Amino acid sequence: MLADAKANMGKEVEFSGCVHRIKNMGSIAFIVVRTSRDVIQTVYSADNCKDSIEGLREGFFVNVKGIVKENPKDFNGLEIELDSIKLISTNAAELPLKISQGRLNCTIEVNLDNRAASLRNPYERAIFKLQEGLVQGMHKFMQANNFTEIHSPKIVAQGAEGGANIFRLDYFGKSAFLNQSPQFYKQMAVAFFDRVYEIAPVYRAEKHATSRHINEYIGLDFEMGYIDSMYDVMKMEIAMLKSIFEYIKENYQNELKILEADVPEIKEVPSIKFADAIELLRGGEGSGKKFDLDPEDEVNLGKYAKEKYDSDFIFVTHFPSSKPPFYAMNSREDPREAYKFDLLFRGLEITSGGQRIHDYNEQVEKMKAQGLDPDDFKNYLEAHKYGLPPHGGLGIGLERLLMKLLNKNNIRETSLFPRDINRLLP
Amino acid sequence: MLADAKANMGKEVEFSGCVHRIKNMGSIAFIVVRTSRDVIQTVYSADNCKDSIEGLREGFFVNVKGIVKENPKDFNGLEIELDSIKLISTNAAELPLKISQGRLNCTIEVNLDNRAASLRNPYERAIFKLQEGLVQGMHKFMQANNFTEIHSPKIVAQGAEGGANIFRLDYFGKSAFLNQSPQFYKQMAVAFFDRVYEIAPVYRAEKHATSRHINEYIGLDFEMGYIDSMYDVMKMEIAMLKSIFEYIKENYQNELKILEADVPEIKEVPSIKFADAIELLRGGEGSGKKFDLDPEDEVNLGKYAKEKYDSDFIFVTHFPSSKPPFYAMNSREDPREAYKFDLLFRGLEITSGGQRIHDYNEQVEKMKAQGLDPDDFKNYLEAHKYGLPPHGGLGIGLERLLMKLLNKNNIRETSLFPRDINRLLP
Repeated sequence: MLADAKANMGKEVEFSGCVHRIKNMGSIAFIVVRTSRDVIQTVYSADNCKDSIEGLREGFFVNVKGIVKENPKDFNGLEIELDSIKLISTNAAELPLKISQGRLNCTIEVNLDNRAASLRNPYERAIFKLQEGLVQGMHKFMQANNFTEIHSPKIVAQGAEGGANIFRLDYFGKSAFLNQSPQFYKQMAVAFFDRVYEIAPVYRAEKHATSRHINEYIGLDFEMGYIDSMYDVMKMEIAMLKSIFEYIKENYQNELKILEADVPEIKEVPSIKFADAIELLRGGEGSGKKFDLDPEDEVNLGKYAKEKYDSDFIFVTHFPSSKPPFYAMNSREDPREAYKFDLLFRGLEITSGGQRIHDYNEQVEKMKAQGLDPDDFKNYLEAHKYGLPPHGGLGIGLERLLMKLLNKNNIRETSLFPRDINRLLP
Repeated sequence: MLADAKANMGKEVEFSGCVHRIKNMGSIAFIVVRTSRDVIQTVYSADNCKDSIEGLREGFFVNVKGIVKENPKDFNGLEIELDSIKLISTNAAELPLKISQGRLNCTIEVNLDNRAASLRNPYERAIFKLQEGLVQGMHKFMQANNFTEIHSPKIVAQGAEGGANIFRLDYFGKSAFLNQSPQFYKQMAVAFFDRVYEIAPVYRAEKHATSRHINEYIGLDFEMGYIDSMYDVMKMEIAMLKSIFEYIKENYQNELKILEADVPEIKEVPSIKFADAIELLRGGEGSGKKFDLDPEDEVNLGKYAKEKYDSDFIFVTHFPSSKPPFYAMNSREDPREAYKFDLLFRGLEITSGGQRIHDYNEQVEKMKAQGLDPDDFKNYLEAHKYGLPPHGGLGIGLERLLMKLLNKNNIRETSLFPRDINRLLP
């Protein structure tokens, strides 16, 4: 709507929206109207406007007509001088939160408990408009790079990651699960689409309530065939993130401004081997014993990347091969390491990826080496049995990416209706 | 890849793919290579190619280089004269299905049991490439019409449609469900984004194995505020379908050709009231008693639309208001009817939609009239309580839309990895 108003300076425009704020000055009143992406100031005076505003309240929905006037003091640089204002819809109660003055002034719990109200705050909704931008930017990049979008089932007979962090459901008397990632299906699809991606919910039954975990999140997944090494996947990820950031800077300027977002310039992204990272973080101590990074390690690696390379991102590569996932290809140089990588963004893991095993026998052997029974993976292994090209891929957590982009401390702030161990509503 | 070859007639190209078919003629061999969207004929002769093809088998993955030559008899009008062919990856077993000669020659059960193999058939995979086209076409239209894409949770405390057709899961000791539609969240979001859409899985625990039901499908949902009537929603749907069909005709020509798809020209879409439809289908008998269309009714209405209006689509409107959904607004002219519509495509319901109740008290009253307790919908009703603009929306089943577009008899054919009462694998 704002673009429309800007293009019609001095002319009449008509639009509908929600009465966001009313400042009644007696003879005139300022009525701020909220439309899908903007809040626009309108000016009412009984002389100019043929309708009365008696009884009009914040939260009501209206249709307005008026002349666009310049106003350099306004956020948008303009205001609408009202000719008419018609009531469309009322409310039954006032909002339990003050949504019209900048940021919400409440705890995250109150915000989330009152989502039908809190998301009417322009700052809060801008978070999710920007979330859309990240997703649309990914579609754009993937489509331009010949990836095919797929839709794999979330109800599965078996989770892709195994372990206890999985939701179980009753499927017509059979036991089924909510998938932990589209991994198996992405790999199967590489055999016929070469490159695939999926943007869909992913489920992890994490029993810990941390600021970086939610139990249902949107996975940005891709998988690509005919790679030479995992570095092809890493290069594709960086190209994608650059492209997405360009896309939001071009199309979501208003939201970036409202959110005071700090979109990083991506230059060269440094890369460190897992063993070297552990050595760097702990010296001799603990190296060789550790199999994963903990949150503190991630924060410290983030600082290291920023200080040494002026980079908001850092790859950690070559995780121990004894550790899941079982589908990670072991290094040809040192089989104790796998071609697996994480990408950290401002000290938080936002991606796991790597080169996968494409050879049937190699995959069967690695399953056995990790104490898994290949017979339990019969359907998955058919892809390998009938042949797969060398391939790799990754998954990005959408909410984590957005969380770090906005320098938020809690992932719940970047999920529209978050789910955690204590939250199933709204 | 094919476009690249066409643009390089007479020149050398390089690409990787799967050996789809080999016809060995002694001194020369025709090696058909499958790439992400095409199958391309290459010609091997020992004189021109520096590599041997001894031991090369169908299903292996190769990198090829060669000169593009015209060949009017070929499906693509060209072939590649090989300079080199390098083996990238092998297989451990031959495919259990013959995938390289046109359509699969097996039952749907065999097809689905062997998905890792059957989707390598160019006809089968073209179905899902086209599915992508429908989804991308929707994104394009929605974005151009100021709809915001949202991601609502699928794990919920309460299903949007109620009833017994719902999957239950254990959520950390609490009872939770898989959502039957994003309805509640879409409506909440209209208050702050005006227009929203979501493309995401939807769950229905249908206990019947029919050719038109699967238990997990992709819902194409949108909801729009500031409407005057449900006809605004119907108009938007038709504009969207037209735009999607244009999009696939422009960008998925190859797949439409492989699939022999019959994409309808959408002109005026006829509309019939539910009561009139029942009268038309059954005369006096049963009218007034029936509350929904059955599959046979839908088929007959499809025939009627085709014969009388030469239309592949027909709207059925004004369903009885006593029937779910409880959020459908009752007609102002006759409260026994609701502003609810279905859209039939070639005799199958692909959409339910309508104008929703936006007034809090009206919604509470309708819940009571349908025997529901408003206290069970406290979170949902907060959206109404704090105010909503007049709004409406709809949901389209992606697999049904594709099924009818391809004139398929079974919805399982248009789901990548379908889920039904008997199928949880692969």
